[in-house]
Amino acid sequence: MDHPYVPRDLHLPGYVPVSLSQSAIVGVYALSSLLVVSLIWFLSGRSRNISKLDRLLMCWWAFTGLTHMILEGYFVFSPEFFKDKTGFYLAEVWKEYSKGDSRYAGRDSAIVSVEGITAVLEGPPCLLAVYAIAKGKGYSYTLQFAISLGQLYGTFVYFITAILEGDNFSASPFYYYAYYILANSFWILIPSLIAIRCWKKISLAVQSQNQKKKVR
Amino acid sequence: MDHPYVPRDLHLPGYVPVSLSQSAIVGVYALSSLLVVSLIWFLSGRSRNISKLDRLLMCWWAFTGLTHMILEGYFVFSPEFFKDKTGFYLAEVWKEYSKGDSRYAGRDSAIVSVEGITAVLEGPPCLLAVYAIAKGKGYSYTLQFAISLGQLYGTFVYFITAILEGDNFSASPFYYYAYYILANSFWILIPSLIAIRCWKKISLAVQSQNQKKKVR
Repeated sequence: MDHPYVPRDLHLPGYVPVSLSQSAIVGVYALSSLLVVSLIWFLSGRSRNISKLDRLLMCWWAFTGLTHMILEGYFVFSPEFFKDKTGFYLAEVWKEYSKGDSRYAGRDSAIVSVEGITAVLEGPPCLLAVYAIAKGKGYSYTLQFAISLGQLYGTFVYFITAILEGDNFSASPFYYYAYYILANSFWILIPSLIAIRCWKKISLAVQSQNQKKKVR
Repeated sequence: MDHPYVPRDLHLPGYVPVSLSQSAIVGVYALSSLLVVSLIWFLSGRSRNISKLDRLLMCWWAFTGLTHMILEGYFVFSPEFFKDKTGFYLAEVWKEYSKGDSRYAGRDSAIVSVEGITAVLEGPPCLLAVYAIAKGKGYSYTLQFAISLGQLYGTFVYFITAILEGDNFSASPFYYYAYYILANSFWILIPSLIAIRCWKKISLAVQSQNQKKKVR
């Protein structure tokens, strides 16, 4: 079966076409994410001590953590997802996303490395961040800072390797901008904002600690 | 001219063999590094407030920062280093190192991406870390933590991509263990130790800040 991906000479023996519609694939992801975010927003609202910003951050960490662990985790450990005949949702997601970046179907080693680090080393810490914010743990900013830097590093490697290899992995300009650029831009924008906030919070806390020591 | 790298079918048109001896190449790097480290150790010793551990860390940041900016910076912006006929030292370094990992001579895009991030985004901040430790800046731990995580992420991508592609890029077991494993292991060991130390320092400072707020 011929595949819809670019470059056209990408070799994918045994490829089975995507069976769900684009709106079904995107819709299930959007609705599940909305459900997770609503649940975290509602539950965190029952505690009076958590600020609105911290509740928003808890929603982000739950959403991104589950995305890393479930969606990206499936990709990392399923090298033959493009041969799936059962219409399994997670295989459909990556068949569809590969229209924006065929390196996923082609199992590019930089992609698999970055996704592996993201799914295994960053996914579970994201869920820990939800807990750490809820409980006001001392390590909460350090953890959020560390994960955000990891997400930024991964997205940088993702885009730089594509540019170095000619940036020709999208089936059309629509998929290029919708999947490859737009979807990934959130993982540059939000981690940047969180990293800057954590940098400030942490550095201020260390500074006041240093000054306390000097006063003594 | 035939090249000495593995895999043997790596195509390097215009390759010019390394002209310096291995001991000259490694010796110049070792001696320059020793010079930098001695200079930082001596200069930092003139201030009474800096602990021995912080002085050691300043030596590390100066050494690793200059390695990132000069050695790795040269590699990133010199795609044709393997054609160099002049015996230029930095080209010799990468001709020699490619015996341990031919992906350097072969310009693998994951390698160039990671080295680019390391040279451009991590190199200068390493030198800032030397200054930040010397001056006891509040952002010193945050900065050291961020760079160390970046170094770890880069080294992970470096090794994982190699494994995924069959781990067959060394000219011999000697080069595999001496260049590829041993040399890189320092950039796993030392950033890990620094990241753990910074994590503890930062999280304690934030915690004591939180408690101060609660007491008020």
